Amino acid sequence: MKVLLDGMGGDYAPEEIVKGAVRAASETSETIVLIGPEEELWEQLRACRWKGDNIEVVNATEVITNEEHPAMAVRKKKDSTIVRGMNMLKNGEADIFISGGSTGALLAGGLVILGRIKGIKRPAIAAWFPRAGKEGVTLLLDCGASVEAKPEYIYQYGIMGSIFVRGITGNEDPVVRLLNVGAEEGKGDELHKQAYDLLKASDLNFQGNIEARDVIFGETDIVVTDGFSGNIYLKSSEGMSLAIMGEFKSKLTEGIVAKAGAMLAYSKIKEIKQVFDYSDAGGAPILGLKGAVLKIHGNSKATEVYYAIHRAIDYVDSQITEMIEEAVNSDSAGPEGDE
Amino acid sequence: MKVLLDGMGGDYAPEEIVKGAVRAASETSETIVLIGPEEELWEQLRACRWKGDNIEVVNATEVITNEEHPAMAVRKKKDSTIVRGMNMLKNGEADIFISGGSTGALLAGGLVILGRIKGIKRPAIAAWFPRAGKEGVTLLLDCGASVEAKPEYIYQYGIMGSIFVRGITGNEDPVVRLLNVGAEEGKGDELHKQAYDLLKASDLNFQGNIEARDVIFGETDIVVTDGFSGNIYLKSSEGMSLAIMGEFKSKLTEGIVAKAGAMLAYSKIKEIKQVFDYSDAGGAPILGLKGAVLKIHGNSKATEVYYAIHRAIDYVDSQITEMIEEAVNSDSAGPEGDE
Repeated sequence: MKVLLDGMGGDYAPEEIVKGAVRAASETSETIVLIGPEEELWEQLRACRWKGDNIEVVNATEVITNEEHPAMAVRKKKDSTIVRGMNMLKNGEADIFISGGSTGALLAGGLVILGRIKGIKRPAIAAWFPRAGKEGVTLLLDCGASVEAKPEYIYQYGIMGSIFVRGITGNEDPVVRLLNVGAEEGKGDELHKQAYDLLKASDLNFQGNIEARDVIFGETDIVVTDGFSGNIYLKSSEGMSLAIMGEFKSKLTEGIVAKAGAMLAYSKIKEIKQVFDYSDAGGAPILGLKGAVLKIHGNSKATEVYYAIHRAIDYVDSQITEMIEEAVNSDSAGPEGDE
Repeated sequence: MKVLLDGMGGDYAPEEIVKGAVRAASETSETIVLIGPEEELWEQLRACRWKGDNIEVVNATEVITNEEHPAMAVRKKKDSTIVRGMNMLKNGEADIFISGGSTGALLAGGLVILGRIKGIKRPAIAAWFPRAGKEGVTLLLDCGASVEAKPEYIYQYGIMGSIFVRGITGNEDPVVRLLNVGAEEGKGDELHKQAYDLLKASDLNFQGNIEARDVIFGETDIVVTDGFSGNIYLKSSEGMSLAIMGEFKSKLTEGIVAKAGAMLAYSKIKEIKQVFDYSDAGGAPILGLKGAVLKIHGNSKATEVYYAIHRAIDYVDSQITEMIEEAVNSDSAGPEGDE
């Protein structure tokens, strides 16, 4: 197996990316392929005193930034890590591509170079979400791959999410719920009402709507919704988490009495931060492409890269892409599409 | 001025509602009218040792619950606090109606009995949102009055929100931003792109898109969006806030060392909870109706009722309903509607 890693993706590239690769490579026999300016990457590897034989380096001289127009950048920068990476994936030179680079460029590159799995209407960005007071994590999709959705897309997100969760966590019958403004059947806009009906008629373990407030408490394994509201869900939760953690940090270090308290409670606060920190959840897969792509957060450091590589190996082992193709093209896969 | 208060709305009615009314009435010369089963309300007033002359009681024998179908309940329960309250508002027997009852019933009752302000396409539920590390609060609308939206509705939310914020806070030129999946112009689905164009061409102090993550940090005075994503924003933030506060509470009381720390830090934690607690923000106005309606949280206690009454007095003083009517029907009020 070859795990391809974008050496230039994210705020701490290449240093932290290479560190994470070295840490993972020393624990696995799979090959990790770093893509980026080769001299720079070799230099980082030397700095990590890497002596093993399961890290390879592939040269790519360009980087697509978050500021560029994704589709345009993908067209122009043929020697960028993302375009080269997608091509390697397409040509079977790698089994999965991990990148902390521009989500838009990964999506555009994935659509143009890899294409969609036959039968899949739209790819989806899926993200793992922490749970409060409960074991496990929850998968939310679509987090913004398509800002316009149709009921069929959301239904397919349910299929893709179920296969992914089954493959990664071993949960054979994951619960799917639809993000909505109320828990009762019949709630929501036309899009969500129709998506509800498709999900209800399917073979999925669909258990109805879920309100945004309840997702964090882990009442479901998978939450499906359109990419617009999925993005709003993800980012508002992230904002609130950042805001509260920030307040705790500043308030608890204010004044001497409180400071003494803060120091004693510090280890606990770190634990809590960990619970609501998505970064070690192992990356967000872009599901529905003809190839496995794992997007990691732009601010990923070595630890997050390390976890993502492990998750990536599970991803490839589970043959998720193949299973999605089979599921959407089987007879019982649901309604005929409109395009 | 007569402030009408639903004596039976919410989880702690009538006791906490009456307590809040008594506290507010002792500080203002305006009249507070409690509506509900009169004997029960008088009993509560006696329990509070109320001796003043600016609380009145109006009898209403029925209550609409959250479990009932809003429109159906409004049609059937003619003697409910909500239906009677809306009728009093319509007949000029009260200047504003505060209720912690069913949002759906308030909306349905408002639409059927009061009707929309001339020129307003859809009413909107507006909610005050806390800010982290910054003074003031942010108004978010629509929080779910209409789950389907058109660009014109969102544009009108901007008008209504600006008038409301101006009236309540005295901020003469409040900043309006559009909730979206990216900060740059051109982001989002067709609905938000078109709403962007309408807002940009208007007289409002529109300063572009805002991502969900950034709202809590107070970069704007008003956030407008469709009711579906507004509801997702509000409830996911609420869920995350509840979850983290819950974790802090349980983690910090775990173990002896941490407990000592927790006790010392306790006062600070309470302060933080206050920051992210929306309950004292004074209720959520339903804007766009021909009458002032203030929805308070179903779990409101006396303190929240007390604040809501004060906010209600400001609301009436500012003649917001009249100003909205004037703004949407003036020449420069924007595009012609499609209905």
